[in-house]
Amino acid sequence: MTESRNPADAGTPISRGIGARRRVLRAALDVLDERGLAGFTMEAVARRAGASKATLYRHWSSSGALLVDAMDATFQPLPIPDTGRVEADVAQVLTAFVALLGHPRFPRLLAAFIDAAERDPALGSLHAELTRRRREPLLVVLTRARDRGQLPAGLDPDLTVDLLAAPFFYRRFVAHRPIPPTLVTEVIARVLDIRPPE
Amino acid sequence: MTESRNPADAGTPISRGIGARRRVLRAALDVLDERGLAGFTMEAVARRAGASKATLYRHWSSSGALLVDAMDATFQPLPIPDTGRVEADVAQVLTAFVALLGHPRFPRLLAAFIDAAERDPALGSLHAELTRRRREPLLVVLTRARDRGQLPAGLDPDLTVDLLAAPFFYRRFVAHRPIPPTLVTEVIARVLDIRPPE
Repeated sequence: MTESRNPADAGTPISRGIGARRRVLRAALDVLDERGLAGFTMEAVARRAGASKATLYRHWSSSGALLVDAMDATFQPLPIPDTGRVEADVAQVLTAFVALLGHPRFPRLLAAFIDAAERDPALGSLHAELTRRRREPLLVVLTRARDRGQLPAGLDPDLTVDLLAAPFFYRRFVAHRPIPPTLVTEVIARVLDIRPPE
Repeated sequence: MTESRNPADAGTPISRGIGARRRVLRAALDVLDERGLAGFTMEAVARRAGASKATLYRHWSSSGALLVDAMDATFQPLPIPDTGRVEADVAQVLTAFVALLGHPRFPRLLAAFIDAAERDPALGSLHAELTRRRREPLLVVLTRARDRGQLPAGLDPDLTVDLLAAPFFYRRFVAHRPIPPTLVTEVIARVLDIRPPE
């Protein structure tokens, strides 16, 4: 996204470059956290960021687009590791993911998305897109390992991502049980059928 | 729970026996569905059921206790199958569970619990208890199969319940992807390492 140089933007924080963009994204998360998805409007974010609504619309076509950007910018897409050992790569991604579940804001936002998605199909699609992005690193790691012959040729990478990621969501949001540090290794051992080092 | 015979209850539906009890539980689900957990109060349920608040309190010690009863009564705990084959038993429980995810009310209620649990620890405990009850049939099936030697002696039944149940929650509430009829067999094959019949 290029920064606008339109003189009409003079004085609006968004035109001051990367720092201003970050400020809008941070304001977006603040609004989301405080008001929930129902209260997430361009107007509310503009007010919070000290920018005009028109300025925000020049950079984001909709409140949905802004929301996706804000989530991505705050909860960085996990890097794709390549240690040469598939179980180590998967462990890195899952460990980063467990850390995300311990973030002060992320679980509450995710729970709000889960609830809102049941009542609003547009928010459901948005949530699906956010999840798709979060699945990507694990999908790359598994597909690559399969193509390298480190995993069975018949392995379904998509189902495997479900099997690896789902227990952490389930423990956190449904069962409300603790996630011990050993759970990453245990899940990997069961799902990939690779024994953890003794 | 014994029905009150106190004359003060005369004319309140709850004292008319099992049908009245069902009416209160149905009213509780209606209130929950329409107002969410935040609006779930004894007063709202009493009004909806045409009973007095005092009468409700004689049967349920708190709105939480009423809520758990209402959820259990509406979404019957799944029966525990015993076909003699662990994969068939697990498939029955998971298939009933997938049906629950297709219920017109259940997913929205579960999503509301997920969201509310993040903001209110008491609701989190209530949700954990509801989940614990829903896990029970699968836990019994797996523990029994392990004790019969149909599954490895070292199998962790609790972790196995997580691995079996979580992908369905995750698909429905996080990834928003379809749950094909084949998914039950695929998940069982991967998690229990038992090949589906050709």
